[in-house]
Amino acid sequence: MRIARFSHDDVPQYAFVQYDEAEEKDYLVALDGYPLGGSRVNPTGERYALDADGIRLLAPIIPSKIYGLAKNYEAHAQFMHEAGHSEIAHAPEDMMIFMKPSTSVIGPDDPIVMPGASHDMNYEPEVAVVIGRIAKNVPVERAMDYVLGFTCTNDVTLRDLQKLDPMWTRAKGFDTACPLGPWIQTELNWRDARISFSLNGEDVPEASGTTANLIHGIPEQIAAISSYATLLPGDVILTGTPHASGSLKPGDEAVVHVEGIGSLRNVVVQG
Amino acid sequence: MRIARFSHDDVPQYAFVQYDEAEEKDYLVALDGYPLGGSRVNPTGERYALDADGIRLLAPIIPSKIYGLAKNYEAHAQFMHEAGHSEIAHAPEDMMIFMKPSTSVIGPDDPIVMPGASHDMNYEPEVAVVIGRIAKNVPVERAMDYVLGFTCTNDVTLRDLQKLDPMWTRAKGFDTACPLGPWIQTELNWRDARISFSLNGEDVPEASGTTANLIHGIPEQIAAISSYATLLPGDVILTGTPHASGSLKPGDEAVVHVEGIGSLRNVVVQG
Repeated sequence: MRIARFSHDDVPQYAFVQYDEAEEKDYLVALDGYPLGGSRVNPTGERYALDADGIRLLAPIIPSKIYGLAKNYEAHAQFMHEAGHSEIAHAPEDMMIFMKPSTSVIGPDDPIVMPGASHDMNYEPEVAVVIGRIAKNVPVERAMDYVLGFTCTNDVTLRDLQKLDPMWTRAKGFDTACPLGPWIQTELNWRDARISFSLNGEDVPEASGTTANLIHGIPEQIAAISSYATLLPGDVILTGTPHASGSLKPGDEAVVHVEGIGSLRNVVVQG
Repeated sequence: MRIARFSHDDVPQYAFVQYDEAEEKDYLVALDGYPLGGSRVNPTGERYALDADGIRLLAPIIPSKIYGLAKNYEAHAQFMHEAGHSEIAHAPEDMMIFMKPSTSVIGPDDPIVMPGASHDMNYEPEVAVVIGRIAKNVPVERAMDYVLGFTCTNDVTLRDLQKLDPMWTRAKGFDTACPLGPWIQTELNWRDARISFSLNGEDVPEASGTTANLIHGIPEQIAAISSYATLLPGDVILTGTPHASGSLKPGDEAVVHVEGIGSLRNVVVQG
């Protein structure tokens, strides 16, 4: 099942995304409520094509908090070392967990606004996990019961600020630093989800990878985080970028694609 | 003006705190709405003594995000070095900004729950700033216009986890790591607010200080943070602890006092 948030003439609403076999395209089946809190929601009877006038996809969720994993793929840790961003050639043994604020969230097609203070902004394509139930002290074996679904994310990072900003609060937490979308996919082969990235229409093969190569897997991330902080429905975990990251400049079009979820497109503008 | 959130027979509600000169004590003057969003609120006509049956103060706000400043007093940076927690003897030139999640917030008299994974938990008494208006790219000269008021906080930190956890996400973000209260004081001599701390009823003079010694002052903090992230009404900035921090163990009673605001008391329990 795919759960989207969209606006129709600027009024936000939730929908299921359904593929119409006859028309060979996706439709938004509008819902009369909020499908994430466990309450029953019903279709309103309205259905919209994704490209219909006045229809716009929004970030599928505004989380109360966003956690992210740094250096959670060996290939990315090595890339960061070779690119001169890190003195250490390997991923750390322990999880490196950072936070992004809810104000950093944007949706599909929203602009990534590059702060004027930075001259080195990078993309990081990733799978994001969306929590579905209150999670505290969840064991690894039951962690996936607390997941509502998955979405695409671009963990946009200011590399130059990251060097001055030890907790990466500015480097990863600026407004627009957390694109999420296009929707929440509740069924995903999360043990081997393929991530790819394209820049200005060209595939960037060195940025691609699969969650099969995660160092700390998704259930382990949920167990570790929930052992000290309560995860709330709608909270999001950015699971890590698989390999290379690279430069984003004003005018660039960045597309994160996760097989089984879909594509998240954003264009960079100068702030 | 002092703005409190309280529960009466477990129903949360806002109030103004007023001193009754005849009775020589504070009363909660209950309000019919939420006094932080700019909408007009009126007294309901009900008034409660702070120690009345069924009355309990709550954290005055549940912020959408909490920023904190690390090593924002030279005396604290030196203390951390002398205590063996930091190799660097001086405060960094740039602001060190971290985040705490909303799930870490507790109120007056709520227990601080020491995670089982830690054996070294510390108190850090501080002044917290509560934002009153949407703030983006606010210049230093106008920053205080965006402040609703101030409250006391204890930036509780797991020193042992902090060494393993580069962004301090666990060390400072665990559930109960952010006591706030007892209320929001809208009028404070914030340029020279005196912070003190007592442990189990004994004053700890080496933990005290004044915001006059802040390295990065409150308007500078608001300007810097709002230059990259939008601050929302109710968001909180923990401005830094003035000097020594020290051990908190199960059974300890920690009281942060800020002159002109009041006292925030919490007791530590084992998690």
